[in-house]
Parts: sequence; C-alpha cells; structure tokens
Amino acid sequence: MINELIQQITKKDAPIVVGLDPMLSYVPQHIQKKAFEEFGETLEGAAEAIWQFNKGIVDATCDLIPAVKPQIAMYEQFGIPGLISFKKTVDYCKEKGLVVIGDAKRGDIGSTSTAYAVGHLGKVTVGNKTYAGFDEDFLTVNPYLGSDGVNPFVDICNKENKGIFVLVKTSNPSSGEFQDQLIDGRPLYELVAEKVVEWGEQCMGDTYSNVGCVIGATYPEMGKALRKLMPKTYILVPGYGAQGGTAEGLKPYFNADGLGAIVNSSRGIIAAYKQDAYSRFGEENYADASRQAVIDMIADINNAIK
Amino acid sequence: MINELIQQITKKDAPIVVGLDPMLSYVPQHIQKKAFEEFGETLEGAAEAIWQFNKGIVDATCDLIPAVKPQIAMYEQFGIPGLISFKKTVDYCKEKGLVVIGDAKRGDIGSTSTAYAVGHLGKVTVGNKTYAGFDEDFLTVNPYLGSDGVNPFVDICNKENKGIFVLVKTSNPSSGEFQDQLIDGRPLYELVAEKVVEWGEQCMGDTYSNVGCVIGATYPEMGKALRKLMPKTYILVPGYGAQGGTAEGLKPYFNADGLGAIVNSSRGIIAAYKQDAYSRFGEENYADASRQAVIDMIADINNAIK
Repeated sequence: MINELIQQITKKDAPIVVGLDPMLSYVPQHIQKKAFEEFGETLEGAAEAIWQFNKGIVDATCDLIPAVKPQIAMYEQFGIPGLISFKKTVDYCKEKGLVVIGDAKRGDIGSTSTAYAVGHLGKVTVGNKTYAGFDEDFLTVNPYLGSDGVNPFVDICNKENKGIFVLVKTSNPSSGEFQDQLIDGRPLYELVAEKVVEWGEQCMGDTYSNVGCVIGATYPEMGKALRKLMPKTYILVPGYGAQGGTAEGLKPYFNADGLGAIVNSSRGIIAAYKQDAYSRFGEENYADASRQAVIDMIADINNAIK
Repeated sequence: MINELIQQITKKDAPIVVGLDPMLSYVPQHIQKKAFEEFGETLEGAAEAIWQFNKGIVDATCDLIPAVKPQIAMYEQFGIPGLISFKKTVDYCKEKGLVVIGDAKRGDIGSTSTAYAVGHLGKVTVGNKTYAGFDEDFLTVNPYLGSDGVNPFVDICNKENKGIFVLVKTSNPSSGEFQDQLIDGRPLYELVAEKVVEWGEQCMGDTYSNVGCVIGATYPEMGKALRKLMPKTYILVPGYGAQGGTAEGLKPYFNADGLGAIVNSSRGIIAAYKQDAYSRFGEENYADASRQAVIDMIADINNAIK
C-alpha cells in the first residue's frame, strides 16, 4: 500500500494528507440546518452533517491530494451514527481514488490487536464468507504494548497489502513526558523507532516499508534525528499549521529522493473558511476555501523541501 | 463511579470482572445457526450471534458479578453491526445493574482524547441537545501521549462521575519491551504509575480514585511494587487464567482492606464450556458453564486473598 501512496504523492506532486476530523462547530450553518431538518438535533443529524461536510471537502480537493486521514474519534463521539459516517467517508474517499489513513491509534495484546487489524485493514470470517469491516488502507497504531501488540497489524498488512503508521514521537505538548525519557542515554522514542524499523523490514514495499511512523511537525530536531535512524520508514507528520509546525521545519523529515514524509493538516484545511486568509470565500463556499488552503499548503511544503 | 464499583464488589463479595470478548468461535452452534438463519452469514448475522451469546452469559451471571469488561475490538472487527452489538451489550449490562468497563485503550492528543472521552463516558452536544454515544461507566486509556492526552478523560470523569483505567503494565509477553525500560534506574511503568497517582488525585472517590490502572496478573512482582506506589489506585488486573496469572500471585495486588483490585477473566468464563472442567454442561448450556466458572473464580480469588 505504501507503493500506491507514493505513486499518488508523486503523481499529484503533493506530500500532504487532509485530516478529515470534523467538529460540528466546523460545519457551516446551511449544512447543519439541512441535516437537522431531516433528522432532528440527534446523533443521526450530527452524523449526516459531518458526512455532508466531508463530502463537500473531498469533492473539492480530491484531484489535488493523495490521501485523507479521518480521525475516528471525531466520529466515535457521535456513537453508532457517527461511525456510520466514518465508514461512508472511508468508502467515498476510496471511490474517489484517495488513499485512506484511518487515524485510530489502536493497539492491544496480540489476540485483540488481531481483531483491530482484521476490522480496520483485513477481512473477518463469518461462516463461509469474509467481510471487510472498515477497510481503510492504513491505520495508525500505538506501540505501548510492544511487538506482540504490533505484529498482528504487520501480518494483516502483508496479507492484504495494507499499511500502518506507528506512533513514535507525537505532536502534542506533553508527548515528551514518557516518549522523551532517556534509556541508557537515548530517548524512548528512538527505541520505538528502532522497533518500527524491525517491524518494517518484515513488510517492505518497493522502496519504503508498509510500516511507517508518526512524528509530530512540532519537534523538528527530533524529526531530523529520526529520519536518519529510519531511512526506509515513511513518516506521517501531524502538527503542521494549527498546532504550530512550519514548512521550513519539515525539510529534514524528507529524504534526498524528495519522498519519505507526508504532512497532515486537519483544521487548517477543513475549517479554512473560518480563517482570515480564506474568509473571502464565505461559509457557503467552505469547500472552495478548503481547496485554496490545499493549494497553498502544497506550495508551502514544496517550496520548503525542494 | 469507583464508589459504585466498590459497593458492587463488596455486596457480591466478588473482586472480579467478566471480560465480554466474544470470538465467533466461542459462540455455540445453536446460537450461530439461529442468527445466520435470520440474517445470513453476514456481519449482521455475526453481530446478532455475539449479542445473543453475551446476553445468555449476562443473564446467567449478573447476580454474582459486579462488573463486565467488553473488549471493543472484538465488536469493531465486525464493523458497524459489531459496534451496534457492543452498544446493546453495554446498555443491557447497565440495565442489569452491572458496572461496565469499556476496554478500548483509547488515547490521543488533547482535542481528540476529548472526543473519545465524550463518546464513551460523556455526552456530545448536538444543537440544543446532548447525547451519550456509548455511555460506559469506565474506559481503559493508553498513556503513551502523556498528560494532555489523559486529562480530557479525567475532566469528563469529574463532570459525569465516570472512571478510567490507565495502562501501566500490561499482561502480554512483550509488554516489557518499552514498559520495563529503565529511566534513571526505574522502569517506565513506574513513571506512568506516578502520573496515574497525580491524575487520580484530581478525581477522587471516597477511598479510591476514579482514575485506576491496568497491571497484568502475569507480572506479580511488579504488581506488588506498584500496589505500594499507588495505594489509592484501583487496579484492573487482566491475565488471570487463560493468560497464566494465578490467584496466589494476585494477593499483593490487594490492599489490607481487601479492596484495591478487580481481576478480569474473559475466555476462562465466556468459553468455559469448551474446557474439560466444564464440558459436562454441554454446548447448549454454555451459560450455566460460565456461571459455574464465575463461582469457581470468585472462590479461587477469595481463598487466596483472605
């Protein structure tokens, strides 16, 4: 699956991914109104609103971007109706030719990780038939439980040609609380990075591994050190824009081949119409604002790395 | 919510929790057959089968046990229909007066953890109304992202009288890969434990905190050390039985008040009828086998700790 992602990135000359993390407060009034008229102020109404919101953004940007990263928490907060919108979003994005990175940060003991891997990346057996539950292309994975919590994902990646991104150094302010702790003089995130390389060797694409990692844009020095430690690992980079990461800081996340990283922006794209820079589009034309924000982000990143 | 859990444990004299982690292979043929006749060999059929299986076990054991711990991965593997069965199971167990610990091991950056906390423990706002998405009583939480990934759960616990169990030392064989790494001579899980105590102080019940932790039964020496480090933290203990933890080894997980820990068994209870010790019940009477396994487990644990 990493091959397909790289092909899309190269074709569209856009090392970016749009985070489809809809808060109801991002959804323009006209969409909320229509959804609530049909379903009431209910979970179903909220779920319809975020789905229509997503669809507008996907339609307006899918020719420009290689991938989307829906954050499942934003759907899970609306219970079952929210998760139905998550699934609709995944399916629609795949129909539009986009690579879908499910941002779920799952991870558990072996047998349980197998269930997550099956549900999100693989197929579950029911009697004599098999079904894909959510069918994303990639999933983000939490490494705290160690190899036997990650290996089931790697196995399914091999079986189904899928991929994962394992959390190494996250973008949030307290990520250092545990991740930066020194073990024999080296931070924990480096130990995790070494394991990611090991897991990744079992699941290689043509030039990069199907086992990628997550390193926040907010820690560029660490990104630089980690890039060297894991040359064949694709880096999913959250934290650009709204969280404070800059394009200039992202340069060391990329390899000399111009590949090796894909930068996420969520709020910065999907709620672009709320920013001064794009307010001229107006709330009704939120999707056009998102399109312009995508164009600007691609230019910003490409200027910095080329 | 920890008060309610302790009250239930004391009333039933049973420091145990039944892990409702149904694999389709655990579900007796007559239940599968009926579900597939109605819904076909589909995700809906599988979801119906695990729901009916759960219901049988809950009906047969709810007078004996204080709590259940459905593992959401086992439902998520069947996609949306599976999650509908998860929600049905949560609701049914609450109707039966049981405390429900959602084993979801969620955790993310702050705004995303808020969405998970709202979805599983709190209420989400839609227009002028609020709704509970999944509405468990407790949720398990992964600490790898640090305080700002955990605090949103603590906030919701305070607001809604709910609780969490934070992973400290998990039961699986590779848990030591990162969790046991020494930082200034002390293992990472101890640093996490110290933070759990800190988070817990912000969310106290009468005698214990609403912020508990997870420590596997498979590491009794570590359990002993951690018990001393976190006297007011309730310990959720997976790994008893099928994973190899013994009742004798669990003694140090409890405080002198006879409280402080709740021991989980999943397979050992829900698939009891498949074990030699309970095969006399037969597949048709799987729920009676589960009831007997619960009785035996309570006796085993109480003998060891009293």
